[in-house]
Amino acid sequence: MRDVKPVKVVLLGAGTVGSQVARVFLEQSAEFESRSGRPLELVGIAVRDLEKERPGIDKALLTNDPMGLVTRGDIDIVVEVIGGLEPARGLILAAVKHGASVVTANKALLAEYGDVIFRAAEASGVDVYYEAAVAGAIPIIRPLRESLVGDEITAVTGIVNGTTNYILEQMTSHGVAYGDVLLEAQKLGYAEADPTADVEGFDAAAKAAILASLAFHSQVRLTDVSREGITSVTDGDIAAAADMDCVVKLLARCELSESGTISIGVHPTMISNKHPLAGINGAQNAIFIESRYAGELMFMGPGAGGAPTASAVLGDVVTAARNRVRGTFAPGGSAYLTRGITPAQEERSRYFVSLLVDDEPGVLAQVAAVFAGRGVSLQAVRQGEDASGLARLNVVTHVARNGDVVQTIADLEQLSRVHAGIKIMRVEGA
Amino acid sequence: MRDVKPVKVVLLGAGTVGSQVARVFLEQSAEFESRSGRPLELVGIAVRDLEKERPGIDKALLTNDPMGLVTRGDIDIVVEVIGGLEPARGLILAAVKHGASVVTANKALLAEYGDVIFRAAEASGVDVYYEAAVAGAIPIIRPLRESLVGDEITAVTGIVNGTTNYILEQMTSHGVAYGDVLLEAQKLGYAEADPTADVEGFDAAAKAAILASLAFHSQVRLTDVSREGITSVTDGDIAAAADMDCVVKLLARCELSESGTISIGVHPTMISNKHPLAGINGAQNAIFIESRYAGELMFMGPGAGGAPTASAVLGDVVTAARNRVRGTFAPGGSAYLTRGITPAQEERSRYFVSLLVDDEPGVLAQVAAVFAGRGVSLQAVRQGEDASGLARLNVVTHVARNGDVVQTIADLEQLSRVHAGIKIMRVEGA
Repeated sequence: MRDVKPVKVVLLGAGTVGSQVARVFLEQSAEFESRSGRPLELVGIAVRDLEKERPGIDKALLTNDPMGLVTRGDIDIVVEVIGGLEPARGLILAAVKHGASVVTANKALLAEYGDVIFRAAEASGVDVYYEAAVAGAIPIIRPLRESLVGDEITAVTGIVNGTTNYILEQMTSHGVAYGDVLLEAQKLGYAEADPTADVEGFDAAAKAAILASLAFHSQVRLTDVSREGITSVTDGDIAAAADMDCVVKLLARCELSESGTISIGVHPTMISNKHPLAGINGAQNAIFIESRYAGELMFMGPGAGGAPTASAVLGDVVTAARNRVRGTFAPGGSAYLTRGITPAQEERSRYFVSLLVDDEPGVLAQVAAVFAGRGVSLQAVRQGEDASGLARLNVVTHVARNGDVVQTIADLEQLSRVHAGIKIMRVEGA
Repeated sequence: MRDVKPVKVVLLGAGTVGSQVARVFLEQSAEFESRSGRPLELVGIAVRDLEKERPGIDKALLTNDPMGLVTRGDIDIVVEVIGGLEPARGLILAAVKHGASVVTANKALLAEYGDVIFRAAEASGVDVYYEAAVAGAIPIIRPLRESLVGDEITAVTGIVNGTTNYILEQMTSHGVAYGDVLLEAQKLGYAEADPTADVEGFDAAAKAAILASLAFHSQVRLTDVSREGITSVTDGDIAAAADMDCVVKLLARCELSESGTISIGVHPTMISNKHPLAGINGAQNAIFIESRYAGELMFMGPGAGGAPTASAVLGDVVTAARNRVRGTFAPGGSAYLTRGITPAQEERSRYFVSLLVDDEPGVLAQVAAVFAGRGVSLQAVRQGEDASGLARLNVVTHVARNGDVVQTIADLEQLSRVHAGIKIMRVEGA
C-alpha cells in the first residue's frame, strides 16, 4: 500500500473530447505520476446519460450530479469539457470556491467570463489552465503566458477554425461553390448539422478574444470582436485572390493600434501565398505572432479532434497536478491593463474591392477619383471583361481606415456606371 | 518611496546577447513589474572589460568579479549569457547554492551538466529556465516541459542552426559550392571566423541533446549524439536531392526506438519538399514534433540574433520573477527515466546511396543483389550518365538498419565495377 495521497481528478462531460481524456488518462497514469510527483486518480465523471455504454470506463465513476462532484471538497482538479456558458460557468466557479484547480477547453466561457474566473481562482489560490480552448493541441497559451512575457506582442493572426479552413481549401483546390462543399463537409462529419458557430466565425471570434487578452494584457470579450463569416465567399473571390497570388482564409487577427487600443476581428481575408499562413490546409490550425523583439513566430498543428484535444487537456492536468504537489499555482490571466477596442471605422487594413462597371471610356478615372476623394490610395488595379459584357475592376488599396473604405463604397454605389454588388475583402501579406 | 522589495537581477556577460538583454530590460521594466507583480531591478553586470564603452548602461553596475556578484546573497535571479562550460558552470552552481534562480542561454553547458544543475536547483528550491538555449526566440522548452507533458512524444526533428541552414540554402538556390558560400557567409557575419561549431554540427548536437532530454524524460549528453557536419555536402548531392523533389537540410533528430532507447543524431538529410521543414530558410529555425495523441506540430521563428535571444531570456526572467513573488519554483528538467542510447548500427532511417559504376550490362543487377544480400530493400533506383562516361546509380532505400547499410557499402566497395567515392545520406519525409 502507498502512503502517498493521490491527486484527485474529476471529469465533467464524456463526449468526444471527454471520453478521449478518460482513455488517455488511464493509459498514461504511470507516466503522469512520474511527471507530477504523485499518483493521479480519476475519481468521478459527470455525464448526462448514466445508462449509455462507455467502453473502458468503470460505471461506478459515473454520476449525473456534476455540482455534487465539484463541491465534494476533496477534489484537486476539475476538468470541464462540457462546453457552453451554463452550467459550465457555475460549476467552474463552485469548483474554484471549493479549492479545486480547473482545466477547461471552453473557449466561449473564457471569452465571456475569463476575467471573473481568473480572479476567483487567484483568490482561492488555484490554477486555471485552458491550452485546449484555442487551436487544439498547438501549445499557444503557455508561449503567450510565459515564454513571450518578456517581449511586446504587436499582432496575432490565426487560422483557428478547421471547418472553415477545410471548406475554403476545397473551394480553392476544386473550384466548388460554398454550398456544395458545406454539404459534403457535413456528410463527412467535418461540419456540424448547424454550422453557424463555425461558418459565421463565432468559434474563431471566441478564440481571438482569448488570444488578444493574453497578448495585450487586457480582457477582450467575444462582443468586442468584429466578425464576418465565410458564407458570402464566392468562387469569384477565390479566383480573384489566385489572380493576385493569394488564397482566401478565414483569419482571426488582433493587433495593437498606434494609440494602444486593440483591433480585433475575424474576416475572410486574401493572404499572399508567400505568407506562411497561406500553406495551412485542411483541419490544421496555425498561429502567427508578430513581436517587437522576437520578430515573427508561427505555431502549427492539428486544431481539433478528440486525441489532440485530450493531449492539450492532459498537459494542463499534469501541470496543475505538479503545481498541487509543489503547493503552488500559476496566474490564469494577465489582464493588468484596460485597453479600449478600436472602433470598426478606425480599423486599418489593406482592402480588395471588386466592381462591375460599364465598359466605357472614363469609368476607371471616375472610380479612381472616388477612392482619391476619400483619401484611400490604390496599390493595384486590374481591369478585365466579365461574362455579362460589362467590365470587372479589381482594386487593392494600400493600408486604409475602414471608415474611409466604407464611405468610398457608398460613394461608388451612387455612380450610374457602377453596377450593384460591390465586393470587398481584407488583404494580408506582402 | 515604494515599500515593495524589488526582484534583484544580475547579468553575467554583456556581449551581443547580454547587451540586448540589458537594453530591453531597461526599456520594458514598467511592463515587467506589472507582469511579475514586483519591480525588477538590474543590480549588477559582470563583464571582462570594465573600460569598454557600453552606451545606455550605468558604469556603476559593472564588475569584473562575477563570482562576487552571484554570491552576494541578496540576488534573486542570475542571467548567464557568457556561454561555454567554465566559468559558467561554477558560477551557476554557486548562484543556485546562494538561493538565486538562474536563466541561461548556454546550450553546451546544459547538454553536458543539465542533470547536475537541475538537481542543485531543485535542492535549493530555485528555478532554472533556458528557453534561449534552443532555437532562439521560438518557445520550445515550455511546450515540451508543460504543454505536452500529458502526451507521449515519439520524435523531435529540428532545424536548429541558422548558419548551416543559410549555407545549404545558398548552395541550393544559387548552385554555389560549399567553400564559396562559407567564405561569403563569413564576410557577411553569418558564419564565425572559426565555423567548426556550426558546420560540424556541434551546436545543433547540443540543442538536440537538450530537446531529447525533455521529450523523452532521460538525460541525454552531447557525446550521445551521432554527429555529421555539412562540410562534405556537394552540389551533386543537392542536385540529386532536387531530382527527387527534396532539399538538403542539416537536421537534428531524436526519436524513441521500439525498444525504448533514444536514437539521436545530427546529419545532413534529404527531406521531401512536401515536409513543412523543407520550407524553413535562411536564419530561421523550426522544430517539428511527432506525438502519440497531438499528432504533428511545428514551431518556427528566428533562431538567433541579439533581440530574439533577449526576448527568450527575458521571458524566462519575468517568469522566474513571478515565481519568486509567489514563493514557488518550477522543475528544470524532467529526467525521471534512464533510457539507453540506440547504438549507431541499430539506428533506423531511409538512405540515399549514390555510386559511380561502369556503364555495362548486369551492373545494376549486381548492385541490387548486394543490397538484397544485406536485407536492405530499395524504394527507388535512378540510373543516369555521368560526365566521366561512367553511369551514376542513385538509390533510395526503405527504412533500414544503419549497420546493414554500412555493410552494404563495404560490400559494394569490393565490386570491381563500382568506383571509389560512394556517397550516402539520410532521407526524411514522404
